[in-house]
Amino acid sequence: MKIYTRTGDEGQTSIVGGRVSKASAKVEAYGTVDEANSFVGVAIAHLPEEERQIREELEKIQHELFDCGSDLSKKEGAERKYPFKVTEEMVTFLEERIDAYVAEAPELERFILPGGTKAAAYLHVARTVIRRAERQTVRLAEKEKINPWVQKYLNRLSDYFFALARVINHRAGHKDVEYVRSANVFSRRRNKE
Amino acid sequence: MKIYTRTGDEGQTSIVGGRVSKASAKVEAYGTVDEANSFVGVAIAHLPEEERQIREELEKIQHELFDCGSDLSKKEGAERKYPFKVTEEMVTFLEERIDAYVAEAPELERFILPGGTKAAAYLHVARTVIRRAERQTVRLAEKEKINPWVQKYLNRLSDYFFALARVINHRAGHKDVEYVRSANVFSRRRNKE
Amino acid sequence: MKIYTRTGDEGQTSIVGGRVSKASAKVEAYGTVDEANSFVGVAIAHLPEEERQIREELEKIQHELFDCGSDLSKKEGAERKYPFKVTEEMVTFLEERIDAYVAEAPELERFILPGGTKAAAYLHVARTVIRRAERQTVRLAEKEKINPWVQKYLNRLSDYFFALARVINHRAGHKDVEYVRSANVFSRRRNKE
Ligand code: B12
Ligand code: B12
Ligand code: B12
Ligand SMILES: C[C@H]1O[C@@H](n2cnc3c(N)ncnc32)[C@H](O)[C@@H]1O
Ligand SMILES: C[C@H]1O[C@@H](n2cnc3c(N)ncnc32)[C@H](O)[C@@H]1O
Ligand SMILES: C[C@H]1O[C@@H](n2cnc3c(N)ncnc32)[C@H](O)[C@@H]1O
Ligand SMILES: [Mg+2]
Ligand SMILES: [Mg+2]
Ligand SMILES: [Mg+2]
Repeated sequence: MKIYTRTGDEGQTSIVGGRVSKASAKVEAYGTVDEANSFVGVAIAHLPEEERQIREELEKIQHELFDCGSDLSKKEGAERKYPFKVTEEMVTFLEERIDAYVAEAPELERFILPGGTKAAAYLHVARTVIRRAERQTVRLAEKEKINPWVQKYLNRLSDYFFALARVINHRAGHKDVEYVRSANVFSRRRNKE
Repeated sequence: MKIYTRTGDEGQTSIVGGRVSKASAKVEAYGTVDEANSFVGVAIAHLPEEERQIREELEKIQHELFDCGSDLSKKEGAERKYPFKVTEEMVTFLEERIDAYVAEAPELERFILPGGTKAAAYLHVARTVIRRAERQTVRLAEKEKINPWVQKYLNRLSDYFFALARVINHRAGHKDVEYVRSANVFSRRRNKE
Repeated sequence: MKIYTRTGDEGQTSIVGGRVSKASAKVEAYGTVDEANSFVGVAIAHLPEEERQIREELEKIQHELFDCGSDLSKKEGAERKYPFKVTEEMVTFLEERIDAYVAEAPELERFILPGGTKAAAYLHVARTVIRRAERQTVRLAEKEKINPWVQKYLNRLSDYFFALARVINHRAGHKDVEYVRSANVFSRRRNKE
C-alpha cells in the first residue's frame, strides 16, 4: 500500500463532499486539532506508570478529538449523509471531570506558571494548542455552519487540561508557582469569560 | 559578536533580495519550517541510542529543512542569483524511505491515535507541524512563485514522519491504537487525497 | 469554584476593557504568548538538576511572558487605567544575558541544526514559538497601538533562547551540528536583520 498519493502536491485536497485548498480555514481547523491530539499523545507518553485512570481518560479524549476532526473536515451539508459525531454528552463528561479535578487540587487564586512535572508541562502545551484549534474553529464558524458542539467541546477541553495539569502536579508534590504581578483573577464571584 | 541587531524591532526584516514585514506570508512560511525543524531536533533527542540509521536520516532531513527555508526565504526572482536548493531527488528519497517503512510496519486499515513511545509521539508532532508549514507554503504560493519542489517535499515529509512513527512503535513492541469510530480509511484502492 | 463559565462558547470573549472575537488578532497574539510560555515550562522540566541559575532565569522569563500577555490582552487605551507592565529594563536584561551566553559558547559561523540535549532541543522549540508570537504581535500592531516594548522583548527573547540553547549544549559536551549548504551567515560585520 502507498500512503502517499501525490494528488495533494498542488495545494488542493479532497475532503468528504468535495475538494478544498489546503490553505482554507477548514483544513487549518482540523489540521490544528490533529496537532493538539499529537501533544496529548506526548503527554500520555510522559504520564507516571501508575496513573492508569488518567491515561484511559486521555485516550478517550484522543478518540473524541478524531470525532472533532471528522466533523470539521466534512463539507457543509455533508452531515446529512454522514451524521455529526460530537454531542452534548461529551461536553458534559468533560465538565464533570473538571469539577472533580478542581476539587482535588489546591484552591486557585492567581494565574500559575505553566509547567511542573513533565506530564503537567505537556498538558499545558496541549491546553494552549487546543485553544489555538478553538480560535481556528471560531474563524471557520464565521464562514460556514459547523457542528456547534465541536466549538464547545474544544473550549471545555482547554479547561480540562488546565485542571488536570494542576492535579498531576499536586499528586506529585510539585507546587505550582503563582504569577505575582496580577490581582486575584480566579474567584467564586467572577463569571464572565 | 552580537547576535541581536535591533534592526527588526519595528516589525520589518531583511531577506535575501529585499525587506519584508515579519507578518508576511513568506516569513510565516519559513518560520514555520524552522519550528518543525526544532521538533525534529526534539524527536532525535528522544530516539533510542541504537537507532543510528534513523538518527542519521533525521539529521539529513534537518539539513534539507534548511534548504526548504532557504528557498522560501528568497525574494521572488532571487533564485536567478542564488539557485534553489530543493530538488526532485530529495522527494524521491523520501518516497523510497516511506515505502520501506510502510512495508516494515503492520498493515494499516484505520486511523491510529498519535502517540506511543516518546520518539514516536514527537514524530507525530513533527508530522502535524510540517503539515502546518505545508499549509502556510500553499498560502505563500497563492501569492508568489516559489520553488515547487519545496511544497512537494513538505507534503511527502509528513507521510514520512507518519510511516517512521509507526515503525518505531512497532520495533519497540508498542501497538498503535486504532480510532474506532471510522471505517477503513486506508486501502489499496483509494488514491484521492 | 467553577473554572469554566460557558460564556465563551459562542466565540466571543471578555478582555480588560471590552469584548472581542476569539478569532481576533489580539487573542491570537496573547494566546500564542501563552503557548510559548508553556514550552518554556517544558524546557525547565528537562533542565539538568544542577542548572539552578538557568532555572531561575527561565522562571523570571515566564513571569515576564505573563506581563507581555497582560499588555497584549488589554483593549487599546485601557493602559490609562491599567498601566503597561513591559519596560525597557526587561529588554536590557535579556541583552546582557545574551552577551554573556554568546561569550561562553564556541564562536558561531554558520546556522546550526536545532537540537542537542533535551533541554536545548526544547529551547529551540521555545525560540521558534516565540518568533511565531512575535509575528502575530506585529500583525496586531499593524491594526492597533500596543506597548512597543512587548515587540522588542519578544524579538530579543528568541535570540536569548538561541544563545542559551548553545550554552546548554556546550556545557553538556554536545557539539552543535552546522548546516553545511550555506555560507558564513554569522559575522562581526553583519548587522542588518
Ligand atoms: C488575559 C487573561 C488571560 C491570559 C493571561 C494574561 C497574561 N498576563 O498573559 C491568558 C490567555 C494566559 C489566560 C489564561 C487562562 N485563563 Co484567563 N483571563 C484573562 C482575563 C481576560 C484578564 C485577566 C487580567 O489580567 N485581569 C485583570 C487585569 C486588569 O489585571 P492585571 O493587569 O493583571 O493587574 C492589574 C490589577 O490586577 C493590579 N494588580 C496587579 N498585580 C497585582 C497584585 C496584587 C497583589 C494586587 C492586589 C493587585 C495587582 O494592578 C494591575 C493594574 O495594572 C480574565 C477575564 C477578565 N476579563 O478579567 C480571564 C480569566 C481570569 N481567565 C480565566 C481562565 C479560566 C483561564 C485559564 C484556566 C483558561 C485555560 N483553560 O487555559 C488559563 C489559566 C492560565 C494560568 N496559567 O493560570 C477565567 C477564570 C474563571 C474563574 N473561575 O475565575 C477568567 C475570569 C475568564 C473567564 N470568565 O472564564 N487568561
Ligand atoms: C479527514 C481526513 C483526515 C483527518 C482525520 C479525520 C479526523 N477524524 O480527525 C486527519 C487530518 C487527522 C487525517 C490524517 C491522516 N490522513 Co487522512 N484523510 C481524511 C479524509 C479526507 C477523510 C477520512 C474520513 O473521515 N472518511 C470517511 C468519513 C465519511 O468517514 P467517517 O466520518 O470516519 O465515518 C463514516 C463511515 O466511515 C461510517 N463508519 C464510521 N465508523 C465506522 C466503523 C465501522 C466498523 C464501519 C464499518 C463504518 C464506520 O460511518 C460514518 C458516517 O458518519 C480521507 C480522504 C477522503 N476523502 O476520504 C483522508 C485519508 C484517509 N488520509 C490519508 C492519510 C495518508 C493520512 C495521514 C497519514 C497523513 C499524514 N501524513 O499525516 C494521517 C494519518 C493520521 C492517523 N493518525 O492515522 C489517506 C490514506 C491513503 C491511503 N493509502 O489509503 C487518505 C485516503 C487521503 C489521501 N488520498 O491521501 N486525515
Ligand atoms: C533566512 C535566514 C534565516 C532562516 C534560515 C534559512 C534557512 N535556510 O532555513 C531562519 C529563519 C531559520 C533563521 C534563523 C536564525 N537566524 Co537568520 N537569517 C536569515 C537571512 C535572512 C538569510 C540567510 C541566508 O540564507 N543568507 C545567504 C543566502 C543567499 O545564502 P544561502 O542560500 O544559504 O547560500 C548561498 C551562498 O551562501 C553560497 N553558499 C552556500 N553554501 C555555501 C557554503 C560555502 C562553504 C560557501 C563558501 C558558500 C556557500 O551559495 C548559495 C547560493 O545559492 C539572514 C539575513 C540576511 N539578509 O542575510 C539572517 C541572519 C543570518 N540570521 C540571524 C540570526 C540571529 C538568526 C537566529 C539566531 C535568530 C533566532 N533568534 O532564532 C536563527 C539561528 C538559526 C540556527 N539554527 O542557527 C542574523 C545573524 C546575526 C549576526 N550577528 O551575524 C542574520 C544576519 C539576520 C540579522 N541581522 O539579525 N535565519
Ligand atoms: C482566560 C482568557 O483567555 C482568553 N481566551 C478565551 N479563549 C481563548 C482561546 N481559544 N485562545 C486564547 N485565548 C483565549 C479570554 O480572554 C479569556 O478571558
Ligand atoms: C489526510 C487528509 O489530511 C488533509 N490534509 C492534506 N494536507 C494537509 C495539511 N497540510 N494540513 C492538514 N490537513 C491536510 C486532507 O484532507 C487529506 O485527505
Ligand atoms: C534570521 C532571520 O529570521 C527572519 N525573522 C525575523 N523575525 C522572525 C520571526 N519572528 N519569525 C520568523 N522569522 C523571522 C528574518 O529573515 C531574519 O533575518
Ligand atoms: Mg475557554
Ligand atoms: Mg499530504
Ligand atoms: Mg529577531
